[in-house]
Amino acid sequence: MTAYLDTLRWSKDGLVPVIVQHVDTGELLMQAYADRAALSETLQTKLATFYSRSRSERWCKGETSGNFIKVTQVFHDCDRDSIIYLGDPIGPTCHTGARTCWFHEAAVSAEGSVHAEGDHKQHGSHAPLTTLLALEHTIQQRKEAMQQPQEGKPSWTARLLANPELLCKKVREEAGELCQTLEENEGTERAASEMADLLYHAMVLLNVQGVPMEDVLRVLRQRFGTSGVEEKAARPPKQ
Amino acid sequence: MTAYLDTLRWSKDGLVPVIVQHVDTGELLMQAYADRAALSETLQTKLATFYSRSRSERWCKGETSGNFIKVTQVFHDCDRDSIIYLGDPIGPTCHTGARTCWFHEAAVSAEGSVHAEGDHKQHGSHAPLTTLLALEHTIQQRKEAMQQPQEGKPSWTARLLANPELLCKKVREEAGELCQTLEENEGTERAASEMADLLYHAMVLLNVQGVPMEDVLRVLRQRFGTSGVEEKAARPPKQ
Ligand SMILES: [Zn+2]
Ligand SMILES: [Zn+2]
Ligand SMILES: [Zn+2]
Ligand SMILES: [Zn+2]
Ligand SMILES: [Zn+2]
Ligand SMILES: [Zn+2]
Ligand SMILES: [Zn+2]
Ligand SMILES: [Zn+2]
Ligand SMILES: [Zn+2]
Repeated sequence: MTAYLDTLRWSKDGLVPVIVQHVDTGELLMQAYADRAALSETLQTKLATFYSRSRSERWCKGETSGNFIKVTQVFHDCDRDSIIYLGDPIGPTCHTGARTCWFHEAAVSAEGSVHAEGDHKQHGSHAPLTTLLALEHTIQQRKEAMQQPQEGKPSWTARLLANPELLCKKVREEAGELCQTLEENEGTERAASEMADLLYHAMVLLNVQGVPMEDVLRVLRQRFGTSGVEEKAARPPKQ
Repeated sequence: MTAYLDTLRWSKDGLVPVIVQHVDTGELLMQAYADRAALSETLQTKLATFYSRSRSERWCKGETSGNFIKVTQVFHDCDRDSIIYLGDPIGPTCHTGARTCWFHEAAVSAEGSVHAEGDHKQHGSHAPLTTLLALEHTIQQRKEAMQQPQEGKPSWTARLLANPELLCKKVREEAGELCQTLEENEGTERAASEMADLLYHAMVLLNVQGVPMEDVLRVLRQRFGTSGVEEKAARPPKQ
């Protein structure tokens, strides 16, 4: 352990910044600091542990709240002064109760002035959502808008949400169109576009059933995960 | 701008740590620091800009290499001392030529000793891959293994990769099984499991055609992205 810790470049305070990322969704959860003891403990216990600069002590995230973060892998960067804990959080990460500590966005107005938007209660709206999560959030917003009195023509997503028959027809159709890109050799651009169609429609279908993508990703990790399990588990049980 | 910058908690050196995340894939790309001027410049130019502690100067990532990072959104955390640049990188981020600066994993042996694994040439193998990217990497490894002399029975992924007819049959079948979870009200667990089936088989089909998930996610962002574009664009052109 000591030999490994010696290879890292610690600040003059004996710390490195640590970034915590959700292993399934890729969400950034929090950023804090570790000293040698905290990193060493994390590698041994597989629970995210840090050094608090304000309290000058080591703390294991969750030791008071119960919201531990199970660390699946630890990484350091090219110049060995920055650490990632890739992990699976139990409950919300932020002390405010938000999923992640990043829920404030710097919004730039047309005139170039900047102000902060977002708070811990509106999770998602001003969090750093990467594309798949942003799409999921948009679908959810369409569903919530359907509770309000409608103006003008409903969006395509709203029509799909309201019509399970249409939705299932589209999911089957898009799967067929994706297969066709291979069968008829339609090219990579068309294949990416059809996969986007399929993914979007399938995610609307998941939303109707109240299933978050996080659950789907967890299933995939449990089938294919780091434990080296063979992908045979991916074969549907019926066969 | 000044009012916004004043709300952040700068270190005694006048810096905040900045984490750069890929807007489409969620990959962590690099971590560096910004002073007030660097953050201000990033918000104005939308190009990731930092303060170099070793050279004591501001630098715009890509100004020498051409590998700029276009910043789509900027976030700060709950206690205002950590920043995320969510962005779209042009080319590799790391000066080594790797996609991301994190390609070293701290590997813990059964006896508890720790050593670093991975280098900049083996991209992916020891980078912090979240579940979707890890699955994509596994599928690619199965394809590469097929070039080698085979031992024992081929894996399910290898069989799918070698048999486009079987693969397309499975993608259509899994889409049907996903629809069935809604049509026959089979419950959320079954829906998550069938979506995992569909996603896995569709990703094998993309791999056969050499299409990375990154391209699919980019298509989705361009359709649904921050510009507030209505999701009508998601309707396939044929209709
Ligand atoms: Zn570094
Ligand atoms: Zn927080
Ligand atoms: Zn939300
Ligand atoms: Zn289509
Ligand atoms: Zn903080
Ligand atoms: Zn680097
Ligand atoms: Zn690779
Ligand atoms: Zn299935
Ligand atoms: Zn169609």
